[in-house]
Amino acid sequence: MNLTKRCVAEFIGTFWLVLGGCGSAVLAAAYTTDSSTIGVNTSFPLGIGFVGVSLAFGLTVLTMAYAIGHISGCHLNPAVSFGLWAGKRFPGSELLPYIIAQVLGAIVGAGVVYLIASGNSNFTLAGSNPLATNGYGVHSPGGYNLPAAFITEVVMTFMFLMIILGATDNRAPKALAPIAIGFGLTLIHLISIPVTNTSVNPARSLGPAIFAGRALFGQVWLFWLAPIVGALLAGWLYLTIFSESVVEEPPRVREPV
Amino acid sequence: MNLTKRCVAEFIGTFWLVLGGCGSAVLAAAYTTDSSTIGVNTSFPLGIGFVGVSLAFGLTVLTMAYAIGHISGCHLNPAVSFGLWAGKRFPGSELLPYIIAQVLGAIVGAGVVYLIASGNSNFTLAGSNPLATNGYGVHSPGGYNLPAAFITEVVMTFMFLMIILGATDNRAPKALAPIAIGFGLTLIHLISIPVTNTSVNPARSLGPAIFAGRALFGQVWLFWLAPIVGALLAGWLYLTIFSESVVEEPPRVREPV
Amino acid sequence: MNLTKRCVAEFIGTFWLVLGGCGSAVLAAAYTTDSSTIGVNTSFPLGIGFVGVSLAFGLTVLTMAYAIGHISGCHLNPAVSFGLWAGKRFPGSELLPYIIAQVLGAIVGAGVVYLIASGNSNFTLAGSNPLATNGYGVHSPGGYNLPAAFITEVVMTFMFLMIILGATDNRAPKALAPIAIGFGLTLIHLISIPVTNTSVNPARSLGPAIFAGRALFGQVWLFWLAPIVGALLAGWLYLTIFSESVVEEPPRVREPV
Amino acid sequence: MNLTKRCVAEFIGTFWLVLGGCGSAVLAAAYTTDSSTIGVNTSFPLGIGFVGVSLAFGLTVLTMAYAIGHISGCHLNPAVSFGLWAGKRFPGSELLPYIIAQVLGAIVGAGVVYLIASGNSNFTLAGSNPLATNGYGVHSPGGYNLPAAFITEVVMTFMFLMIILGATDNRAPKALAPIAIGFGLTLIHLISIPVTNTSVNPARSLGPAIFAGRALFGQVWLFWLAPIVGALLAGWLYLTIFSESVVEEPPRVREPV
Repeated sequence: MNLTKRCVAEFIGTFWLVLGGCGSAVLAAAYTTDSSTIGVNTSFPLGIGFVGVSLAFGLTVLTMAYAIGHISGCHLNPAVSFGLWAGKRFPGSELLPYIIAQVLGAIVGAGVVYLIASGNSNFTLAGSNPLATNGYGVHSPGGYNLPAAFITEVVMTFMFLMIILGATDNRAPKALAPIAIGFGLTLIHLISIPVTNTSVNPARSLGPAIFAGRALFGQVWLFWLAPIVGALLAGWLYLTIFSESVVEEPPRVREPV
Repeated sequence: MNLTKRCVAEFIGTFWLVLGGCGSAVLAAAYTTDSSTIGVNTSFPLGIGFVGVSLAFGLTVLTMAYAIGHISGCHLNPAVSFGLWAGKRFPGSELLPYIIAQVLGAIVGAGVVYLIASGNSNFTLAGSNPLATNGYGVHSPGGYNLPAAFITEVVMTFMFLMIILGATDNRAPKALAPIAIGFGLTLIHLISIPVTNTSVNPARSLGPAIFAGRALFGQVWLFWLAPIVGALLAGWLYLTIFSESVVEEPPRVREPV
Repeated sequence: MNLTKRCVAEFIGTFWLVLGGCGSAVLAAAYTTDSSTIGVNTSFPLGIGFVGVSLAFGLTVLTMAYAIGHISGCHLNPAVSFGLWAGKRFPGSELLPYIIAQVLGAIVGAGVVYLIASGNSNFTLAGSNPLATNGYGVHSPGGYNLPAAFITEVVMTFMFLMIILGATDNRAPKALAPIAIGFGLTLIHLISIPVTNTSVNPARSLGPAIFAGRALFGQVWLFWLAPIVGALLAGWLYLTIFSESVVEEPPRVREPV
Repeated sequence: MNLTKRCVAEFIGTFWLVLGGCGSAVLAAAYTTDSSTIGVNTSFPLGIGFVGVSLAFGLTVLTMAYAIGHISGCHLNPAVSFGLWAGKRFPGSELLPYIIAQVLGAIVGAGVVYLIASGNSNFTLAGSNPLATNGYGVHSPGGYNLPAAFITEVVMTFMFLMIILGATDNRAPKALAPIAIGFGLTLIHLISIPVTNTSVNPARSLGPAIFAGRALFGQVWLFWLAPIVGALLAGWLYLTIFSESVVEEPPRVREPV
């Protein structure tokens, strides 16, 4: 399939990742109600909390990997594209168009979250992480400092790429890879939302930050640098240590995630 | 298998979607207790919240897709039938019988929820969303206005159909499609319960509304219009951009979801 | 494999279903703590609630279906054995040994839950549902009356068997059936724990009731009658309407779940 | 693939198990916030609780089983290696190098959790289970005594190995085994976190205990003894009762988990 169509797929997929992941956080994470149809409780914590947000992020990837994996490989993430390139699974010549499509999808996704949230009279851009932006220090949900945030993003993206590279290896049952990769992103969120609100994805960080004001936009650099560093390390390590010998099978140029 | 038997399958499946999804919301979402067998806590929030309701809706589709996918394709949703028709995966001549079966199943499912709930002396049809009805404005669980509700339902159903069309594409591992589609519906609920109580399914909206009174019945139009618009857009887009070339393979008339 | 070994598998599997399902409810459902290593919160509701208990019951079946499905078919439930018999998937001559093994496994499973729980000085058999017993009326977790409990158990077991019969049909991707069936049981619990504490399984109801005192033991009849009625209905309906024509394929005597 | 590379895989996988499982418990289990972008709630229980921690532990195994199963078999656990050896699935000559790699990975994983947590000014090693250590008596999260803890760890590890041995049996759909095994570990945590904080894995217990002080280190013996006893029992039982007859198929020396 030609590059333009694959970039459309990456646009739609990254749009869904940000709409679903950030949208669930903004719209549903802390929802409560004062009424119930059965029983006498009020103020039951119906909201989805971090478990729900973690599931949502992971399921955006799981669903898109089955929906568009056969079209674009379903990267949805500049760090993933870089890591697959470092692991010799993706051609360098397509890095730029893929990343542009991902960033545009993330911006539109964040815009739709903003649009829907604005239909609620209580919505505001105040708070430490409006529109589910990523941050460190005063913009870390749990108050973690910059070094902790940087280490977290490097290590989490490193392991995310290890999962992706391993689960899409020709020796693994590749039809199941979307489950491993999607739930892998869920797992990463279960661990690290309190630290950075979890990025491991430069596009996902940039999208909401564009709408959230100067302070949060000024922290986006970390969520480009750290995930890409982690992803490159994983691509290099997997290729060096775990890849099949060249004698047994020629190197593959591209492989759907 | 003949059309009558397939419509019986759609009836049972949509019955299960409404019984399981709306039933879990009505019976279990906000449950608390004042006692526990170990420990000293009272009023622990045992209820399943929106995470549990989201899982329940998704699992009705996942379970039915494996149970009756080989019989009827497991649409369970007029918008899905419309979207598959627009994507040239389902014949227009069967739209009406499928939709009638789905609507009847949804009504009976809502009736059984009503019947079981009535076995609890605290049950009432008061509140903003009795029997887990969908709504906007004063009947939006989180107080979202009509435009936000309309946009949400269009976009969510659009993406639901993209997942369905992609995951059941001949190039995808179709045995896994029920997982992508079922958890896709879970994801959609994780995002949008606070906005409209989540429909993306005209039959699911109509069922409980019939029992819930005039105000809620009067809002059902939106949950027919918006999901069908979103589904038609997705069917058209997938067919136009992502479908395989006709040269490689003839167009398929029907394909199980 | 011979009948004795298959009955050992059913014993272990049903032991696991009761230990895992009832154990998670007794030990973990309403757990709270007064301390945390990060932050200032006290009394955070760490317990797993009904979502966790629902997951636990479903995962006992999912895990055992992959572990012993190739040995005994992994029924773990007298109603399932009856339903598969009604659907002509299981020979009537093996009903009794299977059910005996299931009941013994359930009793030992409940005994181990009792043993572990007794290692906590706060444990007591007081309360409406000690050891996660099933009940109606005053022993319904949410106070549902007998008719609601009966209808719930009949309908839920009927749908459970529809899922089992459909997902293990030769036309379905049977390697995925354990996911549909396990998560199907999760779904059933998400809906109906407040009504009856969810049985759909006569053995699971009998096990804890033996240790829980006369009042709860006296309600066990409903959780044998209703699930078996629902299961027989489903077996008969699937066979009559949805089974493949005899011409295309001879009837199968037994098929692993 | 040579033993060194397989030990690197075991190191990375066990690192991930402890980082993900213990990390989610330390960083995210009891998180709350005082602000939300929509609505008026404060102190919503956003933290992931025991459901989230259970999911996290299970997903570390699920993700690694797909990522490195084809490399090392993905044991990540000395008890698993012992149980597979007892079941004649793993050569005794490789037990020691595998266990050394697992223990080193667990220590480094716990060290990274400690490092990240230290980036929060509220972090402390006080409390009954710092760094998500395992314990009994005063170090049992729910106050369970030593016999209850011992029984729990033996039985849970026994069942964990039954799941592993069954799901990777040649008669089972082995591509799905990582789902059974990963969610099996989730299930075990849903049941037993209140009892021992759940180990079933000697390496996972040792890692955090090294950083947590003498009292917790002094309880680590139980989490080596009980899981290994349970695993050996399961390996012996599965081999004796459920394994295929030697006539039908020669014994396998090693099989990926």
